[in-house]
Amino acid sequence: MDGKTIKIGVIGYGVVGRGTVESLIGNAAVIRDKTGLDIVVKGIADLNIDRKNDEYTDLVEIKTKNADDLINDPEIDIIAELIGGYGAAKKFITGAINKGKHVVTANKALLAVHGREIFGLAEEKGVSLGFEASVGGGIPIIRVMKEDLAANNIQEIYGIINGTANYILTRMTKEGKAFDEVLRDAQEKGYAEADPTFDVEGIDTAHKICLLSSIAFSAVIPFDKIFVEGISNIKPVDIEIAKELGCTIKLLAIAKKDDSGMEVRVHPTIIPDSNMLSSVDGVFNAVCLTGDKVGTTMHYGRGAGGSATGSAVAGDIINIARNIAAGCGSRVPVLGFVKGSELSGLRSIEDITSCFYMRLMVVDAPGVLAKVGGILASNGISVSSALQREKEQGGEYVPLVFMTHETKGHNIMAAAEEIDELDVTVEKSVVIRVEGER
Amino acid sequence: MDGKTIKIGVIGYGVVGRGTVESLIGNAAVIRDKTGLDIVVKGIADLNIDRKNDEYTDLVEIKTKNADDLINDPEIDIIAELIGGYGAAKKFITGAINKGKHVVTANKALLAVHGREIFGLAEEKGVSLGFEASVGGGIPIIRVMKEDLAANNIQEIYGIINGTANYILTRMTKEGKAFDEVLRDAQEKGYAEADPTFDVEGIDTAHKICLLSSIAFSAVIPFDKIFVEGISNIKPVDIEIAKELGCTIKLLAIAKKDDSGMEVRVHPTIIPDSNMLSSVDGVFNAVCLTGDKVGTTMHYGRGAGGSATGSAVAGDIINIARNIAAGCGSRVPVLGFVKGSELSGLRSIEDITSCFYMRLMVVDAPGVLAKVGGILASNGISVSSALQREKEQGGEYVPLVFMTHETKGHNIMAAAEEIDELDVTVEKSVVIRVEGER
Repeated sequence: MDGKTIKIGVIGYGVVGRGTVESLIGNAAVIRDKTGLDIVVKGIADLNIDRKNDEYTDLVEIKTKNADDLINDPEIDIIAELIGGYGAAKKFITGAINKGKHVVTANKALLAVHGREIFGLAEEKGVSLGFEASVGGGIPIIRVMKEDLAANNIQEIYGIINGTANYILTRMTKEGKAFDEVLRDAQEKGYAEADPTFDVEGIDTAHKICLLSSIAFSAVIPFDKIFVEGISNIKPVDIEIAKELGCTIKLLAIAKKDDSGMEVRVHPTIIPDSNMLSSVDGVFNAVCLTGDKVGTTMHYGRGAGGSATGSAVAGDIINIARNIAAGCGSRVPVLGFVKGSELSGLRSIEDITSCFYMRLMVVDAPGVLAKVGGILASNGISVSSALQREKEQGGEYVPLVFMTHETKGHNIMAAAEEIDELDVTVEKSVVIRVEGER
Repeated sequence: MDGKTIKIGVIGYGVVGRGTVESLIGNAAVIRDKTGLDIVVKGIADLNIDRKNDEYTDLVEIKTKNADDLINDPEIDIIAELIGGYGAAKKFITGAINKGKHVVTANKALLAVHGREIFGLAEEKGVSLGFEASVGGGIPIIRVMKEDLAANNIQEIYGIINGTANYILTRMTKEGKAFDEVLRDAQEKGYAEADPTFDVEGIDTAHKICLLSSIAFSAVIPFDKIFVEGISNIKPVDIEIAKELGCTIKLLAIAKKDDSGMEVRVHPTIIPDSNMLSSVDGVFNAVCLTGDKVGTTMHYGRGAGGSATGSAVAGDIINIARNIAAGCGSRVPVLGFVKGSELSGLRSIEDITSCFYMRLMVVDAPGVLAKVGGILASNGISVSSALQREKEQGGEYVPLVFMTHETKGHNIMAAAEEIDELDVTVEKSVVIRVEGER
């Protein structure tokens, strides 16, 4: 096994591209001692390669603006696609696969939306496609499910898998500030992008749970079937009331499977403070998995950043390099299964059962509670506790909060619609799902 | 890849043996869908096989008291050694390896003490030796280090990796009870063994950190060089004072590596409540790793039990089965490295630097603080805070607690020895290491 050289082409030299090269070149000696292999970055392609000079770029043989220079290089065994996005990234990945090269990527958006096509192509061509870096930065989770926990029927995933949204919610929780204010500050500090839509509206989280649940449930989950709700409507008052109830609001990715079907969803979620996920703060990520054999495991770490994500890209590269050296092809299927499960039981959000937090702003007058209670009851919703706050000085309206027992999404939506039409309610009612033992 | 059959022999049908068979047979369809392979338990060997009858034992071809019936069966590809202990287990493992069979085991004691010989034999014979189940029950951690984090120079490990000790400490902390009382109750409940020495004296934890640190540091760490101190001397008063300081006492396995050397140790440790390990309670295990690229990750779950541990054994078996099906041998070295590091820098406990908690029981008289302070100073120990408690009613002595800045082990030991000889101290001083940001 000693002495073999594996050559890598890196497309995209941004934060993750640089982090990957930093791992591969910076730790080349460590990697050589572990693997017995020389894993060499032969080339870097980046549209702005002229302006990218550092201690590593000087060490590579090919620096180019044209990714095809790497894809077409017969010496290169593995292509790392690290530009992100859909168009060019897809072209490069499929181009590399078609040339028989193994591919490693951190591109969850592309794989969530075009996965079926790309995974199919990789299997057809018999190459490996590593995407550990696409979820949870450096936290090992994808291969953990595909390999370590392969003896399990995975039944549940709960994840905090977007660092930006978690950073904003954490600061809102600790500082009592409004979403807009914290977002602006996060943008100034570089924790949120100029266009934060993917992060704060839950889309990035949905991309990631799409991949995780596809592996967990042995089925390609269609991205457009995933319910997605972001955090931009979360108000300080809801965070505050949740706190009073011994709970925290987190943007969770949730996937569940039971005998009657599957569900995959992303939304702000109220969880009890006793749940370990409630203490996952700031830019950190964590994924809890429940398997029928292993029970619940939690996997925690930095969910973003060049070094952490680069560690995962480099881990995938090492994994593939070891396969090449050992003379085996793609020993584990790309999503970890050979024969998929039926998707027929994928529940819509209306059919998904959970407990709910419902906050109304109501006129502080007699009969309101009876009226609202009647609507909840007529929609088959059973209330576990109700909380009416004192009127603030000078205020005319009071928040009225209900915690419900388990009910289906369409019940709560129907009730909310009726309640919003009452003349005693002055704002659209706020509905937040509640998960976990309380 | 479809349709290949891999045959397994299971030696030892106790809790873990049964858990493994339950995973492999109970989830055979799941595993087949994931791998395309039929992984078949061909035989079970157990000295008490006559008395072991359940829904799975009826399904295996060979039931025997003689492990050699499985080891010598040419059809069996993988042997799972799940009897534990040193003598017979070692004979079976080396016997199987010598027959060219792959081996999976949960036997940390054997591998920690006789690892060098067994690992060497496995590499010589070109077979795989899986031992994921030996640390942290079902939590993926060994292969996480060998593969996922292979691009990292792993610098630190902090682990709670013995469920019995953690269960006892958790109950002592929550209920204020003494060690002996909680141990007795744990024994009655089946959480602690009749002879609890391995668990409560830290030996089992040391076996596990021996394996983890060998992988992390790319060096076979000699078990007998690991400092081990258990929890049987932990007193409720120390737990109580730690609480007042915003801290928790946990039995930690600690391994660190820097430019000047390595250290591997097991001892009760005071950690701040802000550290995630402080909330790992009961029989749960957790391992925090710090890699130079990935940063700190945490891996949490059930550290024991038949199902969880069986999940890890079955995961190793699936991994090896996929290697066999893909026609590659042992693609990753048994400890995750080809070329080992120098061991010359392994620090003794006297040379290891940390902060300390030191509790004395002293006569409540003038001059005591000055006397003790003088001894600490003359041993080069700098105190970060001191705490003297009120005398309890009727009591003659008071606890006097010092928290020190970083100092070497031999300084604190020398100071403790001097202090214990003072006529104002009435008990041997209690010294507990302190780790983590406060």
